Amino acid sequence: MGLEKVIKCIKENKRFLITTHINPEGDAIGSVIALALILKKLGKSVVVCNTDPVPRNLQFLPYSKKIKQAKEINNRFDAMFVLDCGSKDRVGLFKNGAMPMPPPIVNIDHHITNEKFGYINYIDAKATATGDIIYRLAKALKIKIDKNIATAIYTTLLTETGSFRYSNTNSGILRISAELIDAGINPWRIGQQIYETNTFQRLKLLGILLDEMETDSTGKVAWVTITSAHYAATNTTAEDVEDFINFPRSIKGVEIAVLFRESKEDLYKISFRSRGTIDVTRLALKFGGGGHKYAAGCTVKGSLNEVKEKVLQAAVEEMERKIVKKEKTLESLNP
Amino acid sequence: MGLEKVIKCIKENKRFLITTHINPEGDAIGSVIALALILKKLGKSVVVCNTDPVPRNLQFLPYSKKIKQAKEINNRFDAMFVLDCGSKDRVGLFKNGAMPMPPPIVNIDHHITNEKFGYINYIDAKATATGDIIYRLAKALKIKIDKNIATAIYTTLLTETGSFRYSNTNSGILRISAELIDAGINPWRIGQQIYETNTFQRLKLLGILLDEMETDSTGKVAWVTITSAHYAATNTTAEDVEDFINFPRSIKGVEIAVLFRESKEDLYKISFRSRGTIDVTRLALKFGGGGHKYAAGCTVKGSLNEVKEKVLQAAVEEMERKIVKKEKTLESLNP
Repeated sequence: MGLEKVIKCIKENKRFLITTHINPEGDAIGSVIALALILKKLGKSVVVCNTDPVPRNLQFLPYSKKIKQAKEINNRFDAMFVLDCGSKDRVGLFKNGAMPMPPPIVNIDHHITNEKFGYINYIDAKATATGDIIYRLAKALKIKIDKNIATAIYTTLLTETGSFRYSNTNSGILRISAELIDAGINPWRIGQQIYETNTFQRLKLLGILLDEMETDSTGKVAWVTITSAHYAATNTTAEDVEDFINFPRSIKGVEIAVLFRESKEDLYKISFRSRGTIDVTRLALKFGGGGHKYAAGCTVKGSLNEVKEKVLQAAVEEMERKIVKKEKTLESLNP
Repeated sequence: MGLEKVIKCIKENKRFLITTHINPEGDAIGSVIALALILKKLGKSVVVCNTDPVPRNLQFLPYSKKIKQAKEINNRFDAMFVLDCGSKDRVGLFKNGAMPMPPPIVNIDHHITNEKFGYINYIDAKATATGDIIYRLAKALKIKIDKNIATAIYTTLLTETGSFRYSNTNSGILRISAELIDAGINPWRIGQQIYETNTFQRLKLLGILLDEMETDSTGKVAWVTITSAHYAATNTTAEDVEDFINFPRSIKGVEIAVLFRESKEDLYKISFRSRGTIDVTRLALKFGGGGHKYAAGCTVKGSLNEVKEKVLQAAVEEMERKIVKKEKTLESLNP
């Protein structure tokens, strides 16, 4: 049901390039590795190349050391896989002049917003992860899923579902994961590698952040702030901030969590998370950003105080709008 | 294969009491609720009673409001289920005089150290959770696992495996979890209830803790400390500390994590966690404590400085002993 074109392309060609989006995470890295290993099993010539390095907590993955960076591309390819990437803009390789004449693109993704920029596009917005689609591809190609491929695919499923806890967790994903465990992977070791490679410095930064965390008077909006001074005090960088927004979001009663992160002087990157009742894309759009219903972001110029005031006021208003709307609905039910 | 006696006891009797250990967690509470719902489906009369209340993050569970506390027991019972409890000492109901003549005990557990104190003992140390055994019991009794029973059992599996990440995670558990999702539970909501009901105060306490966290010179032993002053500053209690030891344990390179917690003046409760190479029971035993290979604890008297010095020195020695042992092994391999 749609994978046929991808399979035909694989069967009819020999030399493949595989890449993913900038700032790759578990689903992106796991998917490119799994696909590379599958193509190699079929005797194909494969190069995996991104512009950004493999994040620290994913460097345990098999084949991750063989992933190249942009400047090293010089061979020619019959086709190019772009995985887990909604738009051509987010493909780093197209930006730095490394690929003036890219080969035909096979675009495989699970983002509903995918712009279908390939000559073959296999987009399944119902898939939990891009790795879920790569699993299906392996099955369709009748490839035996060995321990290495299983490790890569399991990593996509584990990270994309937040350790099987996000709303995209379903019974199909758990059954695939069970099959991958039976293929010989060690879920404990993989979980440790992905979630337990904190640095001492990163946890110190988290400590300061939590110590300074604030909420509004209703307790429904909670926020944390990271400034350059915090990085300097703890010897950390922006990379160390990943997932920190989950802490204010985890507070009982909080509906909107906000993370302010100093990017340059008077420029702040802002992340929003929602517990499920508020659509935070609305908030992000107000400031020229975007994202998903429960996870969105934007960039705002100004001093920290100005930025905070504007953004938090908008967040509180969004909360109140929602409450008023709910009350109206109740009124109309009980006129 | 062992469950027959339990089933016979259920079929031949009418009035059941169910209880679990003091300080119950997800596996304990989920198991007693699942068993209560199963027995009620069979038309039995059921009372669930513990000495400790249901922890805050488990109060979302169906039937949890019906769990009684010790003083309310006055009916007579044909049999009494004790779930997830390795020794009679840890059954709160036997301590406070509420049960001078307890009915026959059916002891169901997955701890290898279980003392088999029941007249029926069904102990399976290979089971991931006691809830895993209750699932098997429901199957053997041909009970339809409805949404409420599924929610309770899923909670036992999710909490006991640390969101499917600990070493007790296996493919069987994921397949059972998939079946429970198909029975109508919402894994996202359950995960939110269990893991995302932090309080603002608890996270402030975590902030201070991380800010003050320390490691030894090798970076292999990391520790955090909670004193009465910390509780006072953040308006928290010992209940708020749960899981905090996972933070020092999550640092790359750390082999032993230690949490010091002031219990009374000059009395400290100490938890040890290991990443998998060090057996921390050895450490706990040195101070009269006990536990599992990767999770153990003890209580030590003295001033904070004295206690820290003694315990940390023992931890560093244990690390060094392990390193020396490893070197010896290498020598004997390469003589």
